[in-house]
Amino acid sequence: MTRHVKNILFIMCDQLRFDYLSCAGHPTLRTPNIDALAARGVRFTRAYVQSPVCGASRMSFYTGRYVQSHGAAWNGFPLKVGEMTMGDYLRPLGVQTVLVGKTHMQPDAEGMERLGIDPQSIIGVRVSECGFDPYERDDGLHGIGPDGRYDPRLPRYNSYLNDKGYPGDNPWHDYANAAQGSDNELASGWAMRHARKPARVAEEDSETPYMTRRAMDFITEAGDAPWCLHLSYIKPHWPYIAPPPYNDMYSADDVIPAVKNEEERADPHPVYREFMNHLVGRNFAREEVRREVIPVYMGLIRQIDDQLGLLFGFMRERGLMDNTLIVFTSDHGDYLGDHWLGEKDLFHEPSVKIPLIVYDPSRSADATRGSVCDVLVESIDLLPTFLDSFGADPQEQSHRLEGRSLHPWLRGEHPKDWRDIVFSEYDYSMLPAAMKLGVAPRDARLFMAADRRWKYVHAVGFRPMLFDMESDPCEYRDLGANPAYAHERERLAAALSDWALRQSQRTTISERQILAGRGKSQRRGILIGVWDESETPQDLWSSYRGGG
Amino acid sequence: MTRHVKNILFIMCDQLRFDYLSCAGHPTLRTPNIDALAARGVRFTRAYVQSPVCGASRMSFYTGRYVQSHGAAWNGFPLKVGEMTMGDYLRPLGVQTVLVGKTHMQPDAEGMERLGIDPQSIIGVRVSECGFDPYERDDGLHGIGPDGRYDPRLPRYNSYLNDKGYPGDNPWHDYANAAQGSDNELASGWAMRHARKPARVAEEDSETPYMTRRAMDFITEAGDAPWCLHLSYIKPHWPYIAPPPYNDMYSADDVIPAVKNEEERADPHPVYREFMNHLVGRNFAREEVRREVIPVYMGLIRQIDDQLGLLFGFMRERGLMDNTLIVFTSDHGDYLGDHWLGEKDLFHEPSVKIPLIVYDPSRSADATRGSVCDVLVESIDLLPTFLDSFGADPQEQSHRLEGRSLHPWLRGEHPKDWRDIVFSEYDYSMLPAAMKLGVAPRDARLFMAADRRWKYVHAVGFRPMLFDMESDPCEYRDLGANPAYAHERERLAAALSDWALRQSQRTTISERQILAGRGKSQRRGILIGVWDESETPQDLWSSYRGGG
Repeated sequence: MTRHVKNILFIMCDQLRFDYLSCAGHPTLRTPNIDALAARGVRFTRAYVQSPVCGASRMSFYTGRYVQSHGAAWNGFPLKVGEMTMGDYLRPLGVQTVLVGKTHMQPDAEGMERLGIDPQSIIGVRVSECGFDPYERDDGLHGIGPDGRYDPRLPRYNSYLNDKGYPGDNPWHDYANAAQGSDNELASGWAMRHARKPARVAEEDSETPYMTRRAMDFITEAGDAPWCLHLSYIKPHWPYIAPPPYNDMYSADDVIPAVKNEEERADPHPVYREFMNHLVGRNFAREEVRREVIPVYMGLIRQIDDQLGLLFGFMRERGLMDNTLIVFTSDHGDYLGDHWLGEKDLFHEPSVKIPLIVYDPSRSADATRGSVCDVLVESIDLLPTFLDSFGADPQEQSHRLEGRSLHPWLRGEHPKDWRDIVFSEYDYSMLPAAMKLGVAPRDARLFMAADRRWKYVHAVGFRPMLFDMESDPCEYRDLGANPAYAHERERLAAALSDWALRQSQRTTISERQILAGRGKSQRRGILIGVWDESETPQDLWSSYRGGG
Repeated sequence: MTRHVKNILFIMCDQLRFDYLSCAGHPTLRTPNIDALAARGVRFTRAYVQSPVCGASRMSFYTGRYVQSHGAAWNGFPLKVGEMTMGDYLRPLGVQTVLVGKTHMQPDAEGMERLGIDPQSIIGVRVSECGFDPYERDDGLHGIGPDGRYDPRLPRYNSYLNDKGYPGDNPWHDYANAAQGSDNELASGWAMRHARKPARVAEEDSETPYMTRRAMDFITEAGDAPWCLHLSYIKPHWPYIAPPPYNDMYSADDVIPAVKNEEERADPHPVYREFMNHLVGRNFAREEVRREVIPVYMGLIRQIDDQLGLLFGFMRERGLMDNTLIVFTSDHGDYLGDHWLGEKDLFHEPSVKIPLIVYDPSRSADATRGSVCDVLVESIDLLPTFLDSFGADPQEQSHRLEGRSLHPWLRGEHPKDWRDIVFSEYDYSMLPAAMKLGVAPRDARLFMAADRRWKYVHAVGFRPMLFDMESDPCEYRDLGANPAYAHERERLAAALSDWALRQSQRTTISERQILAGRGKSQRRGILIGVWDESETPQDLWSSYRGGG
C-alpha cells in the first residue's frame, strides 16, 4: 500500500447543513475558502451520517461503525470501553491522533473501573476521549442548571477568556454566548430571540477563531511527525449567537424559504408529529424565528470559512497543503424550520445529509479535482479512508470497520460493488416524543434505509415511512401507508433486515485469520469425526503412537 | 428482592443431547441421580442454546447475551474485552464465581494489551476466563498436531495423572483418551473405531470423577461464603472413549434408531448438504459407527450421573442441598447420525435443544417439584435466573442481559408476556462447508427463529429452510422452498428482522437511567429551541442573569 499523505486534517462543523455553503448552491451565503477546498478536492453530494444527533453520529465517525454496532446511541450515552477508535487504528501507523474541539464523548467510567483502567493514565485518557489525545477538548456547551451543577469538564476556553479580561465562572456563557440585555441583565444566547444581538466577546476571542488558533498551535508543536488532527468546531450549532461582524452580516432577506408543506401536518406519522410538537419544532415553524436565527447561523458559517482561510494560509506557508489530506464535514444538519422542525433527529435530507469535501494533495487525485461525486457515502467511510491514506489496508480491519475507503473515488475510479443503500439510525428514548408516545427506552428506535431514490424509515412499534426523492425531492409525501408502494417498502425492509443481521461484533478475529484457519482443526491435533486412522494424514498420528 | 438461595451449582455437560436421560425418555439409558434432581426441580423440555457449538453457546450462557451481541461466534474466537460475564454480575452480590472444568473461552489478548490489562492480574485472569475465578480450567481436548504444537494451557489434570503414575507429556491422551492397541501402539480415542475399547485409565482417575472431586475440593475450601460454582464436564463430548466399566455398560442393542429419512438426502438445502458431506456426517451415517460410538456416549453419561450421585450426597451431608440452587444442562446436543449428521452445528432438535433441569431448594418452588415445563427457554435465561436467585433484579441489567429469569416458572406462575420465539445462530465460516460453498467468512451465517410449531432457518446467501414440528416432528420435510408456506416464512423472517434490530449494544446506560433522564436537558442548563425566556421555568435563568 502507498502512503498517500503525511498528515490528515479532519475538520468537522457541528450542525452544518449540507446546503449551507456557496459551493453547494446557497444563493447568498459566501464560503470562498471552503469553496476553494472543494475546487481542489472532491465534493460528495450524497454523504449521510449514521445518526442525526451529535454524540451517536460522532461515535460512528470515530469508530468507523454503525450506531447499532458501537451502542453509544445518543448524546451522553458512554461509548463502551473496548470499542476501537480512530487513534487505536492510526497510532500504530506512527500517526499522532489529536483532538482540538468537540467530540461529545462520554467515558464509560463504570467499564473502566471494572477493567481496572485508571482514567488518568494515558490509556485511560484515550479511552475517555474516544481515542484522541486531547490537545484541547471543548464540547462547546457549558450550561449551569438551576441545581447549580456545572459541567465538570471545565473548558480551557473559560480560562482563556478570564485571562483576556472576561470575568466570572463561566465567561463562555456570559460573553461568548450572551449579548447585552436591558436593565443590566444578560441577553442569553440560550434564548433564540437574542440571536442577532452582538455577542459580548471580541471576534478574535470567540470560539471559532480560538479553536483555529489552537489547531495552529498543535501543528506548530507537532513539527515533523505525522498527525491526524481532528479540528472540531462547535459552530454553527446553537446557541445561535455571534460576535460582530458576523451577527449582522446576513439579514432576513438572505433567509431561504422553509421546505415545508401543509400536507405534512395533515395526518403525520405519530413519531413525526411528536417531533413537530417539540418546543424547537414549534418555534422554528414560526417565520419570525427563522428570520432571526438563520442570518446568524449563516454568519457563524461565514466565520468558520474565514477562519479556515487563515488556517489554510498558515498551512500553505509551511508546505502542509501539499502533504495533508483535508476533510471538511459536519456531524449532521439542522432543520431550521424545514418540515416544521428545528434541530435534527429525523431523516429528512436537511438533517441526515452532510457536507463532505475531501482534498487529497497527492498526484493520484489530480483527475478529480474540483469534481462533484454523487455516490452514496456514509460517515463511517472516513476512518477507512484515513487508513488508506496512511498506507494501511482498511480491508484488514473489515471485521471492525463497517465503511469503505473513498480513495477509489478520489482517484476517479468507479468501484462497481459500491453500496446502493445507506443506513442511519436514531434513538429518541431520551426525548419528550418518547414520553408522549409511551414508548419504552428500548423501543424508541428509528432506522433509515435509503437508496438514490427511495427513503424508507422503520419506526419500531409504528407504521413505516417512505419517500420518493425523485418525484418528491422535498420529501413532502409520506408513502409509508400507501398500498401502491408496498413493493418498495418490502424491498427496503428486507435490505434493513439483511443489514441488521450483519456480523458486527465478531471484532476479535479478521476475515483473513478465518480464511487461514478454515478446516485446520486437525493441524492442532483435534480430530473430529474420524473413524479410522486412514482417514487423516498419517503424520498426524505420529505424536499419538507412543506410550505402548 | 428476596435472596432465594445461598449458592448456585451450575452443572454443564458438553454435547449431551436433550433426550439422553432416563427422565427425558431414553428407553435403556439409566440416569437415576439426574432423574432425582428433576424429581425435586423443574425439567424444561424446550430449552434451546443460542448457538449449537461449544464456544459460542457457552459465551451466551456466561454473558447472558445472544451470539450476535457478544460476537464470539465460534470456538476459539476471543470474547472481546469489555463484555460482561457471570462473575461481573455475581461478585458485586458477594458471590464467589468459580470454574471447575471447561469454558472454551479464548482471551482477547489484543484487546487486553490495547487497554493495558495485565493478563496475570486478577482482572486480567478474569477477563481471560470469561469472568470466572479458575479453580480448575480444563477444556478437555489436548491435541498435539504434527507441527508438535501443544495447547499452551497445560491442564492440571495431566500433572495429576503423572502423579498417579501415568507417565508422559500428555497422559490425558495416552491414558484417559486411549486404549491399548496392537503392536505396542496406542488405540487413540481420536479414532472412533476404538470407542468401545477400555481407556487405559482407572475409572477414578478419568476426567469426570476427577472434576467432580475438584468441585468437592472447592466446596470444602469455600466454607461459608456464598458461591456460584460452574462445574463444567467435558463429557460426553468426543473423543468417545471411557474407562471400564462405562466402556461396555451399554451395547449396540441399546442404540436407538437414527432419526433420518431418505427424503432428506433427495434434494437438500445446499448448506445442509455440505454438512452431510463433512467427514463426521459421512461416518455417523454408517450404522457401524453408531453401534460402536453410541453405547460409549451412553456410558459417559452414566458416569456423569454416578458422579453426580456422589456429589449430591456430599452436598447433602453438608446441608448444601437445602440452600443451593442446582442447574443441570448442556452446551448443545449431538446428532449421533440423526439427519445423516454427526457433531452439532445445525438446528435440528438433537443439536440445538438441551436438557435443562433447575432445582430450587426454596419453599417458593415447592409447587413445581417434579414438574415438566414446556415453555420456550433460551440459554441466556440462566444468568438472569442466577441474579434473581441472589436477590438482584435482572431487569436492572436488561440493557445488557437479553434473557429472562426462570423463577416465575419455578414458582408455578405463568408470565403472560413470555417469549413465543427462540433464536439461535451459527457461524460456519471456519468449516469446510464454507469453503465448498465459496462463502466468505462474513457471510457464513445461519439463524434460527422457532416458535412452538415452526422452525425457520435463515441462511445468508441461500434460500431459507422451514420445518413444521407439529405435522413433522422429526423435521424431515424442509418446507423452505414450498410456496404454500410463504406466510409462515414471512412471519418468522419478520420476527428475525425485529430481533436483529434490537438494541443490543447500548450497554452503558440502563432503561431506568434513561427514564430518569428523559426530557431533562434543561436541568443541566442546556436549553434547546427556546425562543423566549418565558418558555422555560424562570429559575433556569437565574444563573444566567448576572454579568451585567
